[in-house]
Parts: sequence; structure tokens; C-alpha cells
Amino acid sequence: MGRRTHPGEIVTRDKRLDALFNPRSVAIIGASTNMAKWGFNFTLHLVHGGYKGKLYPINPSGGELLGMKVYPSVMDVPDEIDLAFILIPPEAAVEALRECGKKGVPACVVVTAGFGEIGDEGESLQRRLREAGEEAGTAVVGPNCAGISSPEPMSLYCTMQPNFPPPGHIAILSQSGQIGGSIQRVCEKHDIGVSRFVSTGNESVLKSADYLDYFAEDEQTKVVVGYIEGVGEGRRFFEAAKRLTRKKPLILIKAGRTTVGARAAKSHTGALSGADGIFDGLCRQCGVIRVAGIDAMFDLATAFVSQPLPRGDRVGIVANGGGWGVLTADACIEAGLDVAPLPADALEALDERLPPWWNRQNPVDLVAGISRGSFFKAIEALAKSAELDAVIALGFGYADSVASVFRNAPGLGGTGEEVAKGMIGSDLRGMNFILDVVRDHSKPVLLASEYAYGADRDRNEAILALRKKGVIVYPTPDRAAKVLAKMREYSRYLSSE
Amino acid sequence: MGRRTHPGEIVTRDKRLDALFNPRSVAIIGASTNMAKWGFNFTLHLVHGGYKGKLYPINPSGGELLGMKVYPSVMDVPDEIDLAFILIPPEAAVEALRECGKKGVPACVVVTAGFGEIGDEGESLQRRLREAGEEAGTAVVGPNCAGISSPEPMSLYCTMQPNFPPPGHIAILSQSGQIGGSIQRVCEKHDIGVSRFVSTGNESVLKSADYLDYFAEDEQTKVVVGYIEGVGEGRRFFEAAKRLTRKKPLILIKAGRTTVGARAAKSHTGALSGADGIFDGLCRQCGVIRVAGIDAMFDLATAFVSQPLPRGDRVGIVANGGGWGVLTADACIEAGLDVAPLPADALEALDERLPPWWNRQNPVDLVAGISRGSFFKAIEALAKSAELDAVIALGFGYADSVASVFRNAPGLGGTGEEVAKGMIGSDLRGMNFILDVVRDHSKPVLLASEYAYGADRDRNEAILALRKKGVIVYPTPDRAAKVLAKMREYSRYLSSE
Repeated sequence: MGRRTHPGEIVTRDKRLDALFNPRSVAIIGASTNMAKWGFNFTLHLVHGGYKGKLYPINPSGGELLGMKVYPSVMDVPDEIDLAFILIPPEAAVEALRECGKKGVPACVVVTAGFGEIGDEGESLQRRLREAGEEAGTAVVGPNCAGISSPEPMSLYCTMQPNFPPPGHIAILSQSGQIGGSIQRVCEKHDIGVSRFVSTGNESVLKSADYLDYFAEDEQTKVVVGYIEGVGEGRRFFEAAKRLTRKKPLILIKAGRTTVGARAAKSHTGALSGADGIFDGLCRQCGVIRVAGIDAMFDLATAFVSQPLPRGDRVGIVANGGGWGVLTADACIEAGLDVAPLPADALEALDERLPPWWNRQNPVDLVAGISRGSFFKAIEALAKSAELDAVIALGFGYADSVASVFRNAPGLGGTGEEVAKGMIGSDLRGMNFILDVVRDHSKPVLLASEYAYGADRDRNEAILALRKKGVIVYPTPDRAAKVLAKMREYSRYLSSE
Repeated sequence: MGRRTHPGEIVTRDKRLDALFNPRSVAIIGASTNMAKWGFNFTLHLVHGGYKGKLYPINPSGGELLGMKVYPSVMDVPDEIDLAFILIPPEAAVEALRECGKKGVPACVVVTAGFGEIGDEGESLQRRLREAGEEAGTAVVGPNCAGISSPEPMSLYCTMQPNFPPPGHIAILSQSGQIGGSIQRVCEKHDIGVSRFVSTGNESVLKSADYLDYFAEDEQTKVVVGYIEGVGEGRRFFEAAKRLTRKKPLILIKAGRTTVGARAAKSHTGALSGADGIFDGLCRQCGVIRVAGIDAMFDLATAFVSQPLPRGDRVGIVANGGGWGVLTADACIEAGLDVAPLPADALEALDERLPPWWNRQNPVDLVAGISRGSFFKAIEALAKSAELDAVIALGFGYADSVASVFRNAPGLGGTGEEVAKGMIGSDLRGMNFILDVVRDHSKPVLLASEYAYGADRDRNEAILALRKKGVIVYPTPDRAAKVLAKMREYSRYLSSE
């Protein structure tokens, strides 16, 4: 392949991974009509996900599956195959991989378990699987993995769990199939767009580092997130990470942080998690951002996709009510940001716009009696100032609940409905105004609102409208503050390089 | 009133607060047909909330409002008034309070702003308000507050923001109207039951300590949560807190933790937040549990309402997939819990039930191939053991998404629907089984699942069914671990008293 893996040098793009993530045809080796088997479920998920290429179920028994003809073997398929999923027992899986080599299949995903993770016997099988893959020149994902997804361009969803996240710009790498499934599910349910997903399994052939190199070059991918239990070849992993982070943010959840967790990780995938402090230091050196959980991972990943990077630590806060301003200021300071005094230009702009009793401080406290229009204008005033690097604004989407009460008010009739529509319309116009502010001033504006809390995320018209444009409203200001601090950490890393 | 406030001594229940939270009749002084005014909105919210008592809008102009007769003054109301909301400008509000005294109204909520929070002039007005209240013998909430709610027995919802949380056992005290509104909204949208809500405002007459004393005696209330910016009479507050925490948990968010936050708090309510370290030490001494935000507050409050307290630190973990087990073990250790080796009785019970290859460790890793029934039985085996104090179990509600894919599978027809129903039914039976386990073994069983993440909370049949019974499924295991650690902190406090 002519790959050179020293950091900074050019890595030739592995074309076989193009076949993996953008296959024009897929074979399912071990396809089955038995609904309790993975051979049924993987096929069902491919069909349910609307795969746009050609699908070839493979099973020696032949017959039909979900309305498709089943072929006895890949050799019988009268077409080229770009990608094969292998779902049959270990010994047979090795044989199937050899056959894929003969057929010239460039990429295979071996879902089958019972290899390196079960001890000596499995390790010997895994060695044979690797040798078969190398001999065939095939890129092999797994074994013992939960599949892959790649929404664009082929609408390929082929994973153990039935998850169908929308297309987008976040690539996901997971060393746990279960957690990978959870991550994808969160994306599906919250309109978080995914470019690629891979459950890496035992990494007998393709390693986490290989996927990082691919994602670095992949135009569809703007941010990479990963769940990691351990990195076998640590040096190679961090070299790839460093190549990636020069171009795109890499956000990792690393499990096995504690001794008990590390012991559990070893029993799970056989991964040696190593000393957490060392891992942490390497992340820092390589510009890798660590987070503790899935919430924090997507809070941050979606911000990287939709917002410009802050160029400094200084944050201006706009709150529609003093309490939220206080909590936000606390959260920003605790996250290491600078809640700077309001600069002269912002003060002047706000003095013009706001009533004389406004608090003239950062956080700007838009108490009751100040109009919604002023709320949006205050955000603009802070974003405009050269002395501030970012804005956090609280208090979105309030119109929805007020509107629903007006709609149901006894005796108001059409007036109530009219007032309700006016409120929601004004919120939606405000949202668009904010998107313009972000674009015009190349400055992040992070939003938080209790109307984005839990299920409300799906109900609130204004918040949903923003989400459809890729902008997440955080349910609490401390989440927005943490995101901003991590974005700043990354922008500082980039400028120090 | 014969109140004695030394800790441990009996505090005579303030009967006027019964009138405040359970009023048989309510007057709205300043009721208005102008939809832009609070006098309209508070009345609308009372009506929308289905207040069960008698409602008397008061306005010198008379006329009608939302189908009700408007009285020129409280003196014209041909009935006793238990509670009056005062929504008119400051000078007039003081006068209205005097009139309420003459009418014998036991409790008033002064929503009007423009008192102590705006400086010298306001402070003098606030002194007059307090004197008027004392003279009248009336319990006064506020001024500058956002109202109160008390779902049972009168379905009283009378707040600035249109929030209608269901009845339940959590009392809420907020020193910010805005945050109080947000808290109530979260409760409404997530079926979190509320007993009382009070926005304390400037606390010119009734102090936070008074509400704590009332909640301590209130049978409807099992847990108290509060948002605090500062406590004027710190000693009185913490004495009341200590009386309360002997009987019920008290969970506080304290804002103004940082210098910048404290400055913002002072500008907001005039509260002096004081040194955070001192506040923290007093909380510890008095068994008060501090949390950083609303998520953590309700994660914990709902657990206190629905689960028994753990008697020790030892937690057993059941995960349906190794990755989640690792993350949960990490989170428990980091929260100060003990992920103890599996005790002999639990090992024995699990050996009987699980296939020979199960991992025989804590976390118990229920890999693919182990039935759902075994998942629930594993939870029971851990809960039964005298050597474990609590269980955290991962992997609920999975049936819903699998079921939806089966339902839509091409060519399966009725079979797909049948399989789907079977899966959901089995999840629901499992849920009931777990409720029985909690009851039978008096041990907390906390659940986490990505199917409880964000909007999924509202979609997943099994998770919704549990929530309707007051049991929250946490979206991530670290939230469950933090809850369990705080529950243990409280149980340790109680046993040390």
C-alpha cells in the first residue's frame, strides 16, 4: 500500500476503505430467514435503512429472504461485490474470507465472535483470519464487531442494533459494539448527522489508527468521535490522532479509567487500558479532547460542526433573568473561561437599545419588561465586539409554552390563537437572526434553554427549527460553558502547532 | 406564633402557610383584561391549571375577565379570602396588603417588583410592606417573586411562567423566579410530581427558613429541593435545614460559587452569597446535599421519592454489553462507591441461571446470547445478596426500537407485528419484576439506558411505564452512579446523627 506512518508525512488514502464506506454492492454471508439470527437482522437493517446499492444475501440453502434471491456462495453472484459482511461461525468465516479474496472483494466486515477475545484457541483462529485477509488483500473490519454505517452516499446501515442516524459530518469509531449502538441511537433520535460509523471489534487487521487516517482525508467528515477501551499499538494510534487533529477535532471517551474499570475492560475485549495518566498526557500532546460520556461528546461534536472556533477566552453572557446569568457565570469561570467586564462598544450598543435600568454588567440580565427583540439585539451587540470571543445566551423557545396556554384560554377565541402564532413567529425570526450573527461575525454563539431539556427538545418549534440547521440548544448553561471551554482548548492547540 | 427555632426543638406549624398552599379561595389584586399584563397572565394560569377553589379577580374598573366577575376591591368580595396575589405597583401594593389585613386574609403573595432590589427608595417601601404585613398578621411571600404552585389538593398554579407540573412529593423553593419556572417546567415535561412550589422573592417577611420548616411538617412533601443565591440569616436557615434533613432530604443548588457569579447574584437579588467554602461546610454539617444543576437535582430527588436508601457503599452492576459495564464501573469508583467482588451467594445464583461462559465478575456482563429473562434474574440475584447494598442495571427499553424495525419489515406481515408485541410485552413484565425486587429487598435498583436519552424518554413504552410509577431510568450510567453516591451520603448522615 506504500503507507508511511510517521506523523506529518503523507498517508496514501486506503482505497479499500472507500469500498467499505461507499459500496456499490453488498453481500451478506450467512443471511438467514430465522428471525432470531444476526443473519436475518443485519439484512433487515440494511433493507430498513434503504441501502441504495445491490444487495446479495448468501446462504448455501438458497431460496428467498425479504423478497430477495439468496445465492449459495459469493462465487455465484453474477456481479462485482464491494463489501461482504460475514456472519457465520469462526472456522467458516475464515474460509469465507478466503473466498472473498478469490472473488476480489476489497472489504469485509467480520461480525462473528469467538476469536481473540475467548483465549488461546480463538487467538490461533484470529491469526488465521488475519493471514487470510492479508493474502486476499482485503480490508477486514473486526472480527467480533457490530458492523458499520455510512449514511451518504449509499444509505448503508448494517449494524447489530437497529439504528439509523441521519447523514451528516460526524464520524464515529467504537471499540464496543454495544456503546457504538447507543451512540448511533442518540444521533438518530436527536437529528445528529453521522458520516461514518465503525465498530472496530478485535482489530485483527484494520486498527483504530487506520480509521482515523481515513476519516482525516474523508471530505464528508468534519469531526471524529470515539469510544476507546485500549490502544494496542499506542504509538501508531497517537501518530494517526495527531495527523487527524491538525485537520479536524477528535473527541474520545476512554473507558477503564479506574482499576476496577480497567479490569472490566480486559475481561470485555481483552484490551489493556494501561495507566490512565499516560493516556491523558498523550491526548493533551496530540490535541485529542477527552470527555466523560456520550452527552458531553455530542454537545461538543455538534458545536464543532455548526460553530466557528473561539479565538480567545472572553465570553459575553446574555440571560433573560438574573438566576440563569449567575449560574452561567459560575459555570464559565469553573470551566476556565473569562467572564470579562463588558467592553465599551458593547456597553454603548446596549445603552442605545435597552431601558435605562439595565444592569450594565456581564452577564447582561434581561429582566422582565425588556422585549424579545432586545434579547436578540443584545446577543448581536456582544458578538460584534472585538473584545469578546464568544457569546452564551439563555432563554430560548419560551414562546411555545406561553402560546399553548393562550390557545386554550377560555373566552379568548381567535385572539388567543393569533397571540400564540405571533409569539412563535417572533421566536423563529429571532433564531434566524442568531444564525446570521454567527455567520457575519465568525464567532460562536452557544444557546441554552430549559425548553431544550429532555423531551422538550422534540416539541419546541423554535428549538427544533434550529436543530434541523445543525445548531443544538443545550438544556443547561453549564453544558454550553463546558463546550465552549473545550472548543477554546482545541483552538489554542491549533494555534500552538 | 410561639415559634422556637433552636435546632431539635419543636416548631409550631404556621397555619397561615396552610392557607397559602391549600387556599379555598383566591383573590387576584390587579387582575386585568390586558394580555400584556401579569394581572391577565396570572389569572389565566390559575384558570388553565384548573384551580378548584373560588377565584376573585380584583380591579377598580370592575367588569369581567375570562368569564368571571371582577370585584372593585377585596372588601367587596362576599366571601372569606384565604390567599391574595398582589400584582399592582409598589405603593398601591402596600395599601392592598393593609386592606387584606382588614379583610382577615391569612396569606398574601406580593409579585410586584421595585422594592429592596432597586436601592434605597425601594428599601424604604419594603420596610413599609413588612410593617403592613406584621400589623395585619398576614404571611407574606415576596415581594418581587414569581408566585407559588400547590397541585394538591386545590390544583393551585399561580406563577409568572405557564408551568403545570403534576402533583407529587417534591417541594421546590427558589430564590430566582426564572429558575423556579425552569425547574417547574422540567417537572411538568418529565412527569416529576411536585407538592409545593414557592418563588421566595426578596423574603421581606417569610424567609427561606420558614418554608423549610413548613415542608418538614408537610405530609405531602417527601423531598425538598431549592435554588439558593444567598441566605440573609444564615444561622436560622441552617437550623431549619437541620430540622428538615432529620426527616427528609434537602437538595440545594447554590449559585454565586465563583467571585464573578457572586457579583452577578448581588446585582440580581441583592443577595450576599458569602464565601462558598463556608456555605459548603455548613451544608455538610447539616446533611444538606449540594448539586451543580437541575439535571442532578431531579436525578436525585426522584430517586429519594421512589427508592429505599442504600445501607452501605457496595454496588453490584449488571450490564447488557461489556462497554457499558466498564463505563459504569469507572463512574461508580469515581463517585466513591465500592464495586465489590461478587459475593458467594450471588455467584451461586448466577451460575445456576447463566450459561457457563458468563464472566463471573462485577460488573456482570450479559453478552449477546443471554436471554432477557436472565437479565432481570441477574438483577434479582444481586439485590438479594446481603453483601451488596445497591444495584445499577444497564440496558432497558431495547425492545421498542427492535420492535419498530420488525413491524416495518417487508414480507413479514403479521409475524413482524407479533414479534414486536412479544418483545415489548417482555420488557414491560421485566419492569414490573424489578419494582417487586426493589420492594421485596428494600434495596435501591437504579436503571440506566440510552433509550432514556432526551426525547426517547417520551417514546419508549417500558421507560414511560416505569416513569408513570415514579421510577426514572437515567440516560447514562454516570448519572445513576452519582445519584447512588449522594443517596449513600445522606444515609450515612442519618445514621451518624
